Amino acid sequence: MTTTNERKILVAVDEGEESTYALSWCLKNVVAEDSKDTLVLLYVKPPQVVYTALDGSGYLFSPDIIATMDNYRNQVAESVIEKAKKLCKDLQDVKVETRVEQGDPRDVICSAAEKMGVDMVVVGSHGYGMIKRAFLGSVSNHCAQNAKCPVLIVKKPKTSAATTSTSS
Amino acid sequence: MTTTNERKILVAVDEGEESTYALSWCLKNVVAEDSKDTLVLLYVKPPQVVYTALDGSGYLFSPDIIATMDNYRNQVAESVIEKAKKLCKDLQDVKVETRVEQGDPRDVICSAAEKMGVDMVVVGSHGYGMIKRAFLGSVSNHCAQNAKCPVLIVKKPKTSAATTSTSS
Repeated sequence: MTTTNERKILVAVDEGEESTYALSWCLKNVVAEDSKDTLVLLYVKPPQVVYTALDGSGYLFSPDIIATMDNYRNQVAESVIEKAKKLCKDLQDVKVETRVEQGDPRDVICSAAEKMGVDMVVVGSHGYGMIKRAFLGSVSNHCAQNAKCPVLIVKKPKTSAATTSTSS
Repeated sequence: MTTTNERKILVAVDEGEESTYALSWCLKNVVAEDSKDTLVLLYVKPPQVVYTALDGSGYLFSPDIIATMDNYRNQVAESVIEKAKKLCKDLQDVKVETRVEQGDPRDVICSAAEKMGVDMVVVGSHGYGMIKRAFLGSVSNHCAQNAKCPVLIVKKPKTSAATTSTSS
């Protein structure tokens, strides 16, 4: 009847536009300004793939390259979280927490939601970042089926072709 | 940042407990009391299966039985809608509309959402009524993938075994 206070809402953020849209939509439509909601921004780093090639076959990355890749992944994580935090800066009473975890986003999101006992999970509808495009939609699907709490799947509307005027 | 006024929220209701829970959750967490939201309660009647047996094989229902079944389906629809409306009765400024349609709930919900230009669809996570249990979860999945707007999938938490005390 009235917006419940002190909810905990987990928003999965990534480097994609859809996740930015999902967060904005959530801020506009779900998080009430005068509430004492806690917003948890979760970014899941893709797992580090290290091919140890004991038998000489396969790939072997030097420690240098691994460090560079890891550094890059951390920078991406930081920039995603910073961007997400900026979107939330106008929220006055809402507490914003950030978390960076690593692994398969499908599992990490669901288990983080359960561990933290959140009231709701918000995800973009399309996969989870460019890297995960192969699993188009599977993160949101997986969360919807496996999270123990309500899941809001936000789809970025297709930009209308209003600006292009080829027919005129 | 602030709850947007005058949103249109479509809640798919059915005879199951999960749908009742989804509606209650939505009323508590999404619909703001002071908003001018419109809540559309949609019940989708299962399609009437009529086996016309022109060749004498298969099933053939007499017009009497068909009328009885149809009557029953209408009563179910009415009772589901009435129950849902009761849940909404404490909402003051929120406009509540009801709709009964017929067909495959997956398609009907998505197309109704699009036709009405709703801002959000709310569905329970488990199928769509007992009859549709075979499609466990497929309605929410389908909506999440096909609706053009954000979809909130609400899962009824398993009742904790706190009341049963076999171990004490």
